[in-house]
Amino acid sequence: MDSAGFDALEDAARARMSPASFAFCAAGAGDEITAAENCLAWRRLRLRPRMLREVVEIDTGVTVLGARATMPIMVAPSGRHRLFHAEGEIATARGAAAAEAIFVLATNATEKLEDVAAQRGGAAHWFQLYLSDRAIAEMLIDRAAAAGFTALVVTADMPVYGSSPRAARNRLVPSEDIRNVNLPGAPIARNAYDQTFSGSLTYPVTLDDLQWLVRRSPLDVIVKGVLRGDDAARCIDAGAKAIIVSNHGGRHLDTAIATADALPDIVAAVGGRAEVYVDGGIRRGTDILKALALGARAVLVGRPVLWGLAVGGADGVREVLAHLREELVRTMALCGVATIAQVTTDLVAQLRREEAS
Amino acid sequence: MDSAGFDALEDAARARMSPASFAFCAAGAGDEITAAENCLAWRRLRLRPRMLREVVEIDTGVTVLGARATMPIMVAPSGRHRLFHAEGEIATARGAAAAEAIFVLATNATEKLEDVAAQRGGAAHWFQLYLSDRAIAEMLIDRAAAAGFTALVVTADMPVYGSSPRAARNRLVPSEDIRNVNLPGAPIARNAYDQTFSGSLTYPVTLDDLQWLVRRSPLDVIVKGVLRGDDAARCIDAGAKAIIVSNHGGRHLDTAIATADALPDIVAAVGGRAEVYVDGGIRRGTDILKALALGARAVLVGRPVLWGLAVGGADGVREVLAHLREELVRTMALCGVATIAQVTTDLVAQLRREEAS
Amino acid sequence: MDSAGFDALEDAARARMSPASFAFCAAGAGDEITAAENCLAWRRLRLRPRMLREVVEIDTGVTVLGARATMPIMVAPSGRHRLFHAEGEIATARGAAAAEAIFVLATNATEKLEDVAAQRGGAAHWFQLYLSDRAIAEMLIDRAAAAGFTALVVTADMPVYGSSPRAARNRLVPSEDIRNVNLPGAPIARNAYDQTFSGSLTYPVTLDDLQWLVRRSPLDVIVKGVLRGDDAARCIDAGAKAIIVSNHGGRHLDTAIATADALPDIVAAVGGRAEVYVDGGIRRGTDILKALALGARAVLVGRPVLWGLAVGGADGVREVLAHLREELVRTMALCGVATIAQVTTDLVAQLRREEAS
Amino acid sequence: MDSAGFDALEDAARARMSPASFAFCAAGAGDEITAAENCLAWRRLRLRPRMLREVVEIDTGVTVLGARATMPIMVAPSGRHRLFHAEGEIATARGAAAAEAIFVLATNATEKLEDVAAQRGGAAHWFQLYLSDRAIAEMLIDRAAAAGFTALVVTADMPVYGSSPRAARNRLVPSEDIRNVNLPGAPIARNAYDQTFSGSLTYPVTLDDLQWLVRRSPLDVIVKGVLRGDDAARCIDAGAKAIIVSNHGGRHLDTAIATADALPDIVAAVGGRAEVYVDGGIRRGTDILKALALGARAVLVGRPVLWGLAVGGADGVREVLAHLREELVRTMALCGVATIAQVTTDLVAQLRREEAS
Repeated sequence: MDSAGFDALEDAARARMSPASFAFCAAGAGDEITAAENCLAWRRLRLRPRMLREVVEIDTGVTVLGARATMPIMVAPSGRHRLFHAEGEIATARGAAAAEAIFVLATNATEKLEDVAAQRGGAAHWFQLYLSDRAIAEMLIDRAAAAGFTALVVTADMPVYGSSPRAARNRLVPSEDIRNVNLPGAPIARNAYDQTFSGSLTYPVTLDDLQWLVRRSPLDVIVKGVLRGDDAARCIDAGAKAIIVSNHGGRHLDTAIATADALPDIVAAVGGRAEVYVDGGIRRGTDILKALALGARAVLVGRPVLWGLAVGGADGVREVLAHLREELVRTMALCGVATIAQVTTDLVAQLRREEAS
Repeated sequence: MDSAGFDALEDAARARMSPASFAFCAAGAGDEITAAENCLAWRRLRLRPRMLREVVEIDTGVTVLGARATMPIMVAPSGRHRLFHAEGEIATARGAAAAEAIFVLATNATEKLEDVAAQRGGAAHWFQLYLSDRAIAEMLIDRAAAAGFTALVVTADMPVYGSSPRAARNRLVPSEDIRNVNLPGAPIARNAYDQTFSGSLTYPVTLDDLQWLVRRSPLDVIVKGVLRGDDAARCIDAGAKAIIVSNHGGRHLDTAIATADALPDIVAAVGGRAEVYVDGGIRRGTDILKALALGARAVLVGRPVLWGLAVGGADGVREVLAHLREELVRTMALCGVATIAQVTTDLVAQLRREEAS
Repeated sequence: MDSAGFDALEDAARARMSPASFAFCAAGAGDEITAAENCLAWRRLRLRPRMLREVVEIDTGVTVLGARATMPIMVAPSGRHRLFHAEGEIATARGAAAAEAIFVLATNATEKLEDVAAQRGGAAHWFQLYLSDRAIAEMLIDRAAAAGFTALVVTADMPVYGSSPRAARNRLVPSEDIRNVNLPGAPIARNAYDQTFSGSLTYPVTLDDLQWLVRRSPLDVIVKGVLRGDDAARCIDAGAKAIIVSNHGGRHLDTAIATADALPDIVAAVGGRAEVYVDGGIRRGTDILKALALGARAVLVGRPVLWGLAVGGADGVREVLAHLREELVRTMALCGVATIAQVTTDLVAQLRREEAS
Repeated sequence: MDSAGFDALEDAARARMSPASFAFCAAGAGDEITAAENCLAWRRLRLRPRMLREVVEIDTGVTVLGARATMPIMVAPSGRHRLFHAEGEIATARGAAAAEAIFVLATNATEKLEDVAAQRGGAAHWFQLYLSDRAIAEMLIDRAAAAGFTALVVTADMPVYGSSPRAARNRLVPSEDIRNVNLPGAPIARNAYDQTFSGSLTYPVTLDDLQWLVRRSPLDVIVKGVLRGDDAARCIDAGAKAIIVSNHGGRHLDTAIATADALPDIVAAVGGRAEVYVDGGIRRGTDILKALALGARAVLVGRPVLWGLAVGGADGVREVLAHLREELVRTMALCGVATIAQVTTDLVAQLRREEAS
């Protein structure tokens, strides 16, 4: 698989999914400006590769929250995997484990977290949750810890759903099979993106909530959805061990800053006191190297994993992750870097371009 | 209604109107560069949303000229509403009132200002006028004050009409029903945009005129059509209570600076001595929040209100305004702001983008 | 005529001309990047109009080389007008005179300069010449002075012809009627743009030549084709009374800087010691005002005049010039300026735009 | 031939080649962003031509590595010329010699280096090689020196092949006729671009290798593929006599910085201690002059030479090079420069463009 083949995978996935499922996967808020910009912002950056370096073997290994990981590529949390494959998150987790990638399971999964946890093999699992209902959160924290998840990822950027014209045009029909099985009563998943916004928040989360979670959780806490340096600093002060720079794939706030553009500010504000990861628009090995060069310790990949899931189940997931790793290795070789530690900011050009014609 | 639905509304309105009426609504001067740029300039700005903030309930309330308003969204003045709906400005005013939005009635209205005033309910009404004929102006000022309008909006940016190829290709046929009923003799409305410019000014207005108006008017005076900080300062020195940053929807001077680009200079020059509003290209809740972040106290919306009027009369107007308010509330929630006072400049990114591919 | 009508004029002219004649008029060198950029560079500039100014009557009058001119719009020199109309430069000069515009007659005219001079009426005529052959130049200088031309325009930017793929695809067939009648022997005009470049210069011109001309000429000397401040200063030191910032309509050196972008540097270098005019891409009244705001005393218009000539002869030329003047007047009204002296740099915005989507 | 004719040459070449051969020639890595940007980056630069200079005769002569060359245009190394013409590198070398251009023969040539060397006439030949296998390198160095090559060009930017979707879609079928005849055993050329990357480097090259080569080689050593100033400095410290700024035509690392953008940094870092050449996207005489203005001593041209080869064999190669030289001469004339030494940085504009519409 090459970069065009990776694009073709999206087409193949689309052919396998119902229009509503594909729209649910692809949807960005509003005019999808941020969803598109996430990709474009990485592509616009230019690489300054090093030559004539001592590169014998290339090692993509990193430590993430103190644990060794084979590569700086993780699976971003996303809901309702049964929309894409009959085995749901079971398949995704198995594919991630086969690729030795950290998998982040979403609260809105359609498989039981304990069943998913059984797929992990040698790779770590993290659990994503909301904090709007502390009783539910406590239940999930305890189950996740018991099942061997090693970190909790709090979603901070979705106090309300965004409005997606694409999703509204392609409504998901609620189904007996698509349930939030980890929530009390295993409710059938709702049409989140096409409901009118009433003004009351769906998943509010405050600094108090975060501080509560840090105290309550036996696991490391990571905050996902941060786009500002000041917010990152507040999270760390509250006890978060890591930040995920994210705009939720452009799904909620359209024209939010692209994650590639937000990353440097946050890395500077964090100043090494915590780990910084980034998601949004990562489609190429060059994107990954640029994210690392700008200060991210790892990236998370969302939609491509779901394309792989739809087309090939666990094997498809594994192939997507292996392809990205292969592209990263090739990019490292071509940039003259043998280890992730050698990926530094000078690899990305700071152009002041004269624009004409 | 979502952002795509809002775009669809324009299509629906077009289907309801005669080509000449639609052209009159849509027309921009010359190559319509400024008309298009007004929209694009808001879209280009990037948001830096806040996370983990204490947002329980979202309040869009503001004070405008000392009076409480439910939201920072007002109806921009525009002429000849009977072109778009049989009930003309009566319907527009009723719809605005239902949405609790301030309505600015234009001198070139096709309904009597007293009849329009009766629709206001709990929302304020302002009256737009020209100062080229002081006798007519005095008559209108007195009638507006008597009818309960609370402010006067002087149009400063149309000393002459612009030249619109679009309007010239789609000439309005003068009609018995389309009259400037608030002017002496209720003349039939003319084909303003396709007449050759003779060199004599149509609606000249000078600083003297403004000073005269401030002395003469029992109502607060607002100047509409300011695009420079120095001009804003001169207006305030002359007694204006507020400024509307506007290029008349790009209808007169093509390649005039987009209002989003002009706003910061004017806010800085005013320095809090008066209120600053902005119109031009506002189509999304995110546009509104950006305008507020750059220092506007409120925005005015023109063409979308007319689309709503054409499609649904008063109800259509109400729906357009309610939709924008809903989008603003959602945007505030997603940006972590509970009140308009919390909308500050740091919410908008100041990018120096490297441009490539 | 509005701006779209002006564009339509080009289409009408194309329909009247042979493909080769149209190509000769439209041709730019190479990929025509500069030819296109000349227009775009004016459009990209943004206007910052003034409001509430004392504008009663608008006066487009200027002085050019000490003489009063009705407007700051002149006819740029161009060759072979018989390709476009049977009356050739006779018609162009008559139309320019009717519009009270200064006409610059080219050496490569297809009508005798004395016959053209008879059309001038109250407007001034200038004569364009090359300096590669001093004997021919002396003959032309003396004839031009005798015929009442008041200035000489030396073309400095065409030491060799450019290479135009467009012209090469549409070869002009030499014709008995298309002769350089002002040159000795009245030779039939050649296919300048599709000849292979041999390395020897066609129209070289040096500072020595310019100094010689200043001494030799009874008329004021203007240098056309300057794109750098240092060159402008050298011309003035050599005795030139004015500079025309020009890249020859993008006809010779592709990717040469657009004249709108070159103008400020030259105005600064000249520092008021001489007059500065500009041509290239002027199509709208707003373009003219921007050129004046950036420091030009007047603009020259080339191709649009030829479109008018092709479609309507002298009347067509007059209409094109009158249309541009009307657009300039309207633009001045909308910008709050009553006289050309009031057109200052602050009318053009200096944006640092953040670029995204 | 003009610039459009040069573009047409590519079409003609495509018509002559098999789809796989054309893809092999045209291929860029990944999304071909760098391959396209190489061209666009030169086009975006704007020229500031000089006027009124003493230019009688134009001399494109330069010295390259101390030897006089007729022009600053050389033939970039590329492999497998038999794919494009039955006479392979024999024809290319003969055409280059006829145009008096330096020819760089690639190790992966399909003709014996001694046979190619016989075509050189009065023009110099250089030999490109990899350093991954020192035994093979020594054999090639000795043969190249014996055959009269005067410099060695070490390729530094291809430790591994890039991944080209275009090449993968158009697979070259291995052929008895397409052999790397200069390598031991003359192996049939492989499908380099569509193989999966295993992680082990194909052509690694280190600073040690370069130092070894400088000691071992009787010929001057040039490093090709440098994109950073620091790397250029290291090469010179190691004994390299010249640097070729190159990203291998965008064939390996997509989104690598365009060579026009990388050049100034490298020229500054080298500071005159060695010669700097550049390749990538050179298609016009204006591109060449810009490269020289930014500090390159000469340019190398790759794909256009192969188009000429495919269409016309040695004659086609000669015509391509003669055409580029003619365009350079014309550009020099139009820029007012008589010698390459007069081509200085001020000929290129440093615009800070305001971007709009």
